[in-house]
Amino acid sequence: MIKNNLFQFNRIAQDKRARAGVFTTPHGDLLTPVFAPVGTQATVKAVSPDQLRAAGASLVLSNTYHLYLRPGAELVAELGGLHRFMQWDGPMLTDSGGFQVFSLADMRKIDADGVTFKSHIDGSTHRFTPEKAIQIQEDLGADIIMAFDECAPPYDREYNQRAVARTHVWAERCHTTQSRRDQALFGIVQGGIFPDLREQSAEFISALGFPGHAIGGLSVGETKAEMHAMIEVVDAILPEDKPRYLMGVGSPEDLIHGIRRGIDIFDCVLPTRLARHQAAMTLTGRINLMNAANAHDPQPIDENCTCYTCSHFTRAYLRHLIVAKEMLAATLISIHNIHTLVSLVNDAREAIIAGQFDHFADSFLATYNPQDKTS
Amino acid sequence: MIKNNLFQFNRIAQDKRARAGVFTTPHGDLLTPVFAPVGTQATVKAVSPDQLRAAGASLVLSNTYHLYLRPGAELVAELGGLHRFMQWDGPMLTDSGGFQVFSLADMRKIDADGVTFKSHIDGSTHRFTPEKAIQIQEDLGADIIMAFDECAPPYDREYNQRAVARTHVWAERCHTTQSRRDQALFGIVQGGIFPDLREQSAEFISALGFPGHAIGGLSVGETKAEMHAMIEVVDAILPEDKPRYLMGVGSPEDLIHGIRRGIDIFDCVLPTRLARHQAAMTLTGRINLMNAANAHDPQPIDENCTCYTCSHFTRAYLRHLIVAKEMLAATLISIHNIHTLVSLVNDAREAIIAGQFDHFADSFLATYNPQDKTS
Repeated sequence: MIKNNLFQFNRIAQDKRARAGVFTTPHGDLLTPVFAPVGTQATVKAVSPDQLRAAGASLVLSNTYHLYLRPGAELVAELGGLHRFMQWDGPMLTDSGGFQVFSLADMRKIDADGVTFKSHIDGSTHRFTPEKAIQIQEDLGADIIMAFDECAPPYDREYNQRAVARTHVWAERCHTTQSRRDQALFGIVQGGIFPDLREQSAEFISALGFPGHAIGGLSVGETKAEMHAMIEVVDAILPEDKPRYLMGVGSPEDLIHGIRRGIDIFDCVLPTRLARHQAAMTLTGRINLMNAANAHDPQPIDENCTCYTCSHFTRAYLRHLIVAKEMLAATLISIHNIHTLVSLVNDAREAIIAGQFDHFADSFLATYNPQDKTS
Repeated sequence: MIKNNLFQFNRIAQDKRARAGVFTTPHGDLLTPVFAPVGTQATVKAVSPDQLRAAGASLVLSNTYHLYLRPGAELVAELGGLHRFMQWDGPMLTDSGGFQVFSLADMRKIDADGVTFKSHIDGSTHRFTPEKAIQIQEDLGADIIMAFDECAPPYDREYNQRAVARTHVWAERCHTTQSRRDQALFGIVQGGIFPDLREQSAEFISALGFPGHAIGGLSVGETKAEMHAMIEVVDAILPEDKPRYLMGVGSPEDLIHGIRRGIDIFDCVLPTRLARHQAAMTLTGRINLMNAANAHDPQPIDENCTCYTCSHFTRAYLRHLIVAKEMLAATLISIHNIHTLVSLVNDAREAIIAGQFDHFADSFLATYNPQDKTS
């Protein structure tokens, strides 16, 4: 078990449950709350590192499961680690691989010690244990790494009981295994939509002394009300002085609801995945740029947006790129969508510091249309 | 017929037949010789305008045929013209659509007045005449526009005789039709691989008083020796004080051979097309980045290259992106390939100015391996 002073979390403001802070990492300070775009295979799809930085990103997540399979964690280590490999010199986060093993891999067999699975790429057989997940993440070298966990279907109580028990044993093993001092290992709370399991999990994980905590197993099929209730249950238990990370969450309304309930860190593929499906994110809802209504539109996606895409390109041009199947469409819309989420979270931070988060959040939620979904 | 002073061509140095010049356009000065990457559908594939500029590009070509079909020239005009539409504020060039009609469109019927063809996109019927080609290019608004021509198979003498005659009549009609003063209309010399037809065409086109001239119908299946011979025939006839454009040519060795024979302007899809097929261009030959030999290679594509890609990324990372089918691969390799060709042509320009072009060209050709083709 590693204790070190490389990772400091300073809360600089609190407005009810919402917190603004600074989380220090070996690759720079994260201003929280923070939204991390996802670079699954050591690249945020269609976006270069300089475009990513210009879009305002500060933290990038990459997926342990994918990088382990391809190009391999040893190769990344040999080439100087993930930051150097993909040329992102800011803070990075890797997940544990657990969620992907359970959602992507074929023919998985879970036992008390770990998971045996077949690669979704070539069918080859592999095994993840808590120790292996830490070893891979130490090879990759992200600033924040995650304990190996089991994410169960949200409404299956018996499965969640077993998964929580396994996740707790695995969290202890991860904690014991960690050897690098320059990585912050976060524990993960599971428990589906069951308040008592979430409580039990939050208490157990908190007691292990991790420098940060994550809430896993949400945004996987439960209702918004259930998600909010689970965050509230966990929020009341996790230590206030450590960052809280809501995994895989990133729609604009979920970010605001999460911040309101004490979350500091988010990640989601949504901005880049939507971009590859022609959907632009705005603070009032999504725009399907493929719609014929955009064909002659000389306006940017969002006239108030300061991103590279909105500073230069019309909706008509973006629609043309989409219709003509040009790769630049995904790049330009991804830049805009990332900038939109990063800016929303930054604005939330400013509102917390100003003691006006409730007003900010209520105004946003009153005008945002989450039903306007295009993909 | 338009005469104006917006387009000045000043030759600042000549070394045997090779020339270094400055071609003034309404969107800035082109330092010649110059290589133009191709943005077929109002985007250089996978590269943003700022990345393109950073790669060193000064002139960009876009295709009249493609833009006429999609999104339509009127739409581009309505949105402020091609420069504004695609946010390239430097000099631009559009071709006449002739080559694409003859190579891409279906069921074309050629008559003395023009060409009727079916769209390769949706099968709809369209008709290009010289007047229509100019009208479309005036709607698009590039700085350099091209007369409508017919490009015949290089070895078919009878076809080339007919095509040259038609190209000449069409050149006169284009010349008469042009109405915008802020565009330079270039005439195109045709004639396949037949010296007498090329001579006849160069003389006829030269006499029309265009502000610049192009050599069409080369790099379409003839041998390198035949291409060089045709350039030399035409070079001896075209007026020295106007820029010469060798259309569709862009392999490193062809650029050097062309510059040696008096060419000032080139365009080619090669750097971006090769990039999408995993081939990196270097001054010694092509590298197939997909090769397993690159899997662990910590070197950039070219250690002497100063492009964004070579300044940041290893061959191992680029190969990983290719294997993982990540779009960023095409972006990063395109940036490198464009930078390589632009730099080669810039270096040739410096050598001409220094009076050392022959030495430069011979050294380059002695070490460049044109057989090392990977796609």
